[in-house]
Amino acid sequence: MTSQTEFSLRQRNRGFHLITDEIVAHLPQLPEFGLLHLFLKHTSAALTINENADPDVQTDMTKIFDRLVKEHEPYFEHTLEGDDDMPAHAKSTIVGVSLTIPITNGRLNLGTWQGIYLCEFRTRGSNRRIVATIIG
Amino acid sequence: MTSQTEFSLRQRNRGFHLITDEIVAHLPQLPEFGLLHLFLKHTSAALTINENADPDVQTDMTKIFDRLVKEHEPYFEHTLEGDDDMPAHAKSTIVGVSLTIPITNGRLNLGTWQGIYLCEFRTRGSNRRIVATIIG
Amino acid sequence: MTSQTEFSLRQRNRGFHLITDEIVAHLPQLPEFGLLHLFLKHTSAALTINENADPDVQTDMTKIFDRLVKEHEPYFEHTLEGDDDMPAHAKSTIVGVSLTIPITNGRLNLGTWQGIYLCEFRTRGSNRRIVATIIG
Repeated sequence: MTSQTEFSLRQRNRGFHLITDEIVAHLPQLPEFGLLHLFLKHTSAALTINENADPDVQTDMTKIFDRLVKEHEPYFEHTLEGDDDMPAHAKSTIVGVSLTIPITNGRLNLGTWQGIYLCEFRTRGSNRRIVATIIG
Repeated sequence: MTSQTEFSLRQRNRGFHLITDEIVAHLPQLPEFGLLHLFLKHTSAALTINENADPDVQTDMTKIFDRLVKEHEPYFEHTLEGDDDMPAHAKSTIVGVSLTIPITNGRLNLGTWQGIYLCEFRTRGSNRRIVATIIG
Repeated sequence: MTSQTEFSLRQRNRGFHLITDEIVAHLPQLPEFGLLHLFLKHTSAALTINENADPDVQTDMTKIFDRLVKEHEPYFEHTLEGDDDMPAHAKSTIVGVSLTIPITNGRLNLGTWQGIYLCEFRTRGSNRRIVATIIG
């Protein structure tokens, strides 16, 4: 049994944002066992799973990624869409735009410390579209 | 309903290559709703989703990854298969060898600006095998 | 047909560890065709697929990732859980905590040189929980 829904996440600016509750609020009733697949329809943001407790993890993560792929590199040719655009594309490919999470006993089977993050890599982000597919 | 097919992508050299059309041409008819899983059976290349419009994104992406994991690092021990081999393994793990894409109304539900890339990390690549699994 | 099982991997220290056989030993009988999804319930380790032959690949991979995200960065705020903790979170997001692998003729359809790795990013790791979901 496959079900699918598509929705928008509210606008956020550059950063790693915990969105577990916002995602769960958009989902239909989950099957007893299966998989949830989340797919972000964009190329300058990403989805990941990381620590859901200390907000310092989120700010440090943003700093680490801003150093991993720096802006203003003299060799960039794709610069027309802003200094933050090409680094955002690279970070999106490093992190990835989709997640697959097991469903167990009708709930997402995340670890105790795991949460779902939207990684917004544009300085000023926009609404982001997600396709959620549930395989039961 | 699960279906599966295996095929080869034609040889390409180092770079980020847009392969959406080549992939779609290998797929059977898609179900109304479901998931397409693509799996690359190699350890020195990868699959990702990124911008399908400006070719500068693809050349900048290659440059960014060539700087992220440089060749000729004095601490490399795995050097027998060529200077490009160990960095290719690391880049493959950073990007990943599989993609899962939602199917909606019988078509891949990619964002407007999203395309499927083969990331060839060997200087001279070879034919690359893909397993495509469709869950309906 | 969906089946699911949850198990622990034995403790390992920092490094890239080949775990294909340990994973397969925990799986029930596989369907003829389908997908295996592996999900690691932690935020300072990861799962990836890479070369299963030369052990130098595994030690070089550890060195590459230790240089990609260095410890002791002066800008880190999340330092209470040890110097290796924040880099471990970042590496976990770069590599990812889940894998999806095709099943063909009742077996994992990996490439000849592909193996499943546990990437342990803590200096001293702990038992790691995995959820394995099989879609047939």
